[in-house]
Order: sequence, then structure tokens, then C-alpha cells
Amino acid sequence: MNIGIIGLGLIGGSLGLSLQKNGHNVTGFDKNRNHTEKAHEFGLISDFTDKLDDLTDNCDVIIICTPVEHIDHLVNLTLSKTSSDQIIIDCGSTKKDICSNIDSHEFRDRFVAGHPIAGTEFSGPSAALPDLFSGKKMIFCDIEKSNERAKTIALQLFSSLGMQLLYMTSEEHDKHLAYVSHLSHVSSFALSLTALEIEKNDEQILNLSGSGFASTVRLAKSNPDTWTSIFLSNKRNLLIAVEEYQNQLQRIKDALIESSDESLKELITDAGKIRKILK
Amino acid sequence: MNIGIIGLGLIGGSLGLSLQKNGHNVTGFDKNRNHTEKAHEFGLISDFTDKLDDLTDNCDVIIICTPVEHIDHLVNLTLSKTSSDQIIIDCGSTKKDICSNIDSHEFRDRFVAGHPIAGTEFSGPSAALPDLFSGKKMIFCDIEKSNERAKTIALQLFSSLGMQLLYMTSEEHDKHLAYVSHLSHVSSFALSLTALEIEKNDEQILNLSGSGFASTVRLAKSNPDTWTSIFLSNKRNLLIAVEEYQNQLQRIKDALIESSDESLKELITDAGKIRKILK
Repeated sequence: MNIGIIGLGLIGGSLGLSLQKNGHNVTGFDKNRNHTEKAHEFGLISDFTDKLDDLTDNCDVIIICTPVEHIDHLVNLTLSKTSSDQIIIDCGSTKKDICSNIDSHEFRDRFVAGHPIAGTEFSGPSAALPDLFSGKKMIFCDIEKSNERAKTIALQLFSSLGMQLLYMTSEEHDKHLAYVSHLSHVSSFALSLTALEIEKNDEQILNLSGSGFASTVRLAKSNPDTWTSIFLSNKRNLLIAVEEYQNQLQRIKDALIESSDESLKELITDAGKIRKILK
Repeated sequence: MNIGIIGLGLIGGSLGLSLQKNGHNVTGFDKNRNHTEKAHEFGLISDFTDKLDDLTDNCDVIIICTPVEHIDHLVNLTLSKTSSDQIIIDCGSTKKDICSNIDSHEFRDRFVAGHPIAGTEFSGPSAALPDLFSGKKMIFCDIEKSNERAKTIALQLFSSLGMQLLYMTSEEHDKHLAYVSHLSHVSSFALSLTALEIEKNDEQILNLSGSGFASTVRLAKSNPDTWTSIFLSNKRNLLIAVEEYQNQLQRIKDALIESSDESLKELITDAGKIRKILK
């Protein structure tokens, strides 16, 4: 198939690599010319264009992999130019706003809302990985609103990358992701800001960090544009998650203030039950 | 040399493996008989005993690797039985309490306070690793209070494991570690408790987690006894760190409440400066 990818960063670039490997012809578009050139140079895409119309004119499938804030506009724009045998898929990290905004579009059924749970803390075409999606989860949202052809092609494309397909409403998606992804980023950003604040008065402090700190602070290296955009488009759910996180933090702090051996042990033992899902 | 190790968990067990590899004879002691037997079965120690006196009678060096709460007592006990050519080293994760409590001991100079910045979220002898210490940092505290012989042997032992040696006061140590290690654990425990609390009403939620969540919540699998003990013995510094963390968290929350694209981007960009120390 002829596949167009809009947004040639970590997700779009990795997708380009994997889809080409599966025999598809991939044309890339990125408003950042430097990204486009790098993506082509690295072989992430077979071809590129600086005209969006080239994609709607020639591609069977267009996959939108830009930061969340641009997806609404791009889905609307490209969808309006599709014919009935073309489909648009997005890979945004939040889904409710996008799905709501596109809901009354005359060609809504040619659109498939998706979110590959895959990524690293790095961004841009140079962060693309050949096997980023294999074994990971692909969430499709509000899939009943897509037509049979769009569904079949989207499901086949992403399962051919070795992904496990999951289905839920865009509302459920955003609520869940607030806890298992967006909150993790908030906790890492706050941890990094705390350590850097202290370091102002004590340059040596960060030299002492080990693998535990590195692991918890890793996500702080994530792209500011990407994550500002995700946070704002999932504000309501994320605020609820952050409040619950603040409550749990306060419980640990209270046990510490009281020097309660028993309460601390209980809290840490309870926290350890995360083992059942993370081996 | 004949080396005795008290506490045969992740640190003591790994130390036993590495020291044997370097040609030392290692006798193990653990009040948990099951740990002792496993450590011997896995080859982490050359020999074992259930009498502490066997160690003070026969070892040139005794290294204490128990949870922090038992170290005071064990340092006191073993130190009292040493002769002038024996040395005691501890590997506790906090140092100020231990150093203060031992300060007036008549044989204080035979003691070296240490902390290897090495570990995983796993515990017990089965978590021991053959190369846990290589390339990691070893912090020695209040080293001027140890005699020349004790200093020379301790420094030589740990540098022979491929460790980078660092020196500071026990007070500085505890302050720094509150930020770069203990706070990371608090943030992971709180994140895990938050996710598990939500999961009570929504069993599927944790199935959606990806590598980001796994990374930030990894430390929540840490041993409750070990960490309760560390938190309580570094209460004052850790509370200051937790408060600063709460402040930073609130700044992110405020920017989100205000839907301030600019503030969020600035906070995330600032958090990303952690890159300069974590590649």
C-alpha cells in the first residue's frame, strides 16, 4: 500500500521503518524540513513531500503522528480531501478531544483513532527505532465509528507490526492513560525539578545518584512540546490523578512525621503489590 | 584475607561473590537461617557460621550489610570484640545515626562507615549479582575517624571491586541521599499506591501501562523492612526533600489548572536539564 505519514518524530519515524519493512511504500511529511530530510536520510521513509495534498492524492492510508495539539486540525484537513477508499489514522497520546471534535465530520467513518503504547524519552527522527512497536499494545478508540474497510486496514496494519490490539472508548482511554502514563511523567518532572533546585546550592549532589534515581527521573527528559500538549488535552483526568498522587504522598509523609514504623511498612508493602502486574 | 559478612541479602551476597573472586575467604552470617543456607548453596560465601564470635575470632575484616536499623547494634557488638588489627566496615544506606552512635566507642578508629551506591529493587540472597559493584560509587563517611590500617584496607577492598571512591561527612551523605535515592523511592511508592487505588474500581487499567510507568514505579518493588528503616533513620532530611517535591508537584498542578501552555513548557524544559547529569 501507499502510506503517508505526517509527523516524522519518534513514532512517525519508527512507523515508517516498520511499515517499509512490511513491504509498504511510505511517503513522509513534516512541517520541520530538517526532520523530513533526516527521516529520508535515515531511511525512515521511502519518499517525502512538502505538500499535504500529495498525501491525500496518492496514499491509501495517512497516519498522523504529530504532537496532540496539531492532530485535530490535520485530521479535519486531510479527512475532507479523502475519497471513500482512503483512511486516516492518528497516533495521538490522548483521544477524547480528537474524537469529539471529529464526531460530526461527514467522513468520520474513514477515520480510525489509535494510540500505540510505545515510546522512549527521546524525540525526533534520530530517536526512531526499527522495532519500537513489536510486542507493544495498540489501543483503538471508538472503533464502532469507523467503517468496515477503515477498521480492517487499520487493524491489519498494526497487528502486522506485532502489536496487541485493544479497544475502548476515547473517554476510558484518556482516564486510564492519565494514571499509567501521564502521571508518571508528572512525577518524573517534579523529581527532576526538586533535585535540580537543591543542586543550585550543592553542585556535587547529583554525582551521587544511582540507577534508582535514573529510573524514576528518566521521563523528565521527554519533549516539552509533546507533553505540554498531552497534559492540556487530558487536563481533567490528569488533575484527578495528580490529586490522588498528592494524597498518597501525604500518607507516606504523615507516617514519616509520626515515625510510624508500622504505617511505613504497611504503605511500602501495599505499594509492592504492583509486582502482580510488573514482573 | 579472611572476611566476615553479616547480612546475606542483595548487598552482602553480591559482596561475598565479588570478594571471593578477588581471592578472599568469605564467612557469612545471617540471623535468617534460610538466607545463610541459600547464600552458601549459591556460592555467595565460602563458609558460614551461626555464631557472631566466630567472625570476631577469625576474620581480618567484618562487613555489616544488614538493614540500617540493626547496624548500630552490630557495629557496637563486633567492635567491642575486635583486636587492634581487625576492622569493621558497614554498608548502610544512611550514615549519620550510625556514625554519631559509635562516636565515643573506645575502638571507633577500627570502624569504617561506607555506603556502596549499588542495588536493584530485589532483595535477599537470590538477588545477589556477580558484578553489582563494578563501575559504581562507594562513599566513605567521616573517614578521618578511622585509623590508617582500617582506611587502607577498606579503600583497597572496595577499589579492587572496580568502585569509584568518594568521601564526605556522614551528615552530607544523608542530606544528599535523601534527594538522589530516598525521595525517588517515596515518589515510586506513591505512584504505585495511586495506580493500585484506582485499579480497585477498574481492573483493566494497569494492563495499559508501558515502559514509562514501569520505569517510574520500579522502585516500589523494594523491600519494606529495608526502606522503612532507611526512611526513619533519615527522617529529617527526607521530610525536607518530600516538602520540596510537594512544592514542585504543586507548581506543575497550578500550571495545569491555569491551562498555561507557557508555564508547563517552561517547567518541563527546566526538568529536562537533568540531561546534563543523566545521559
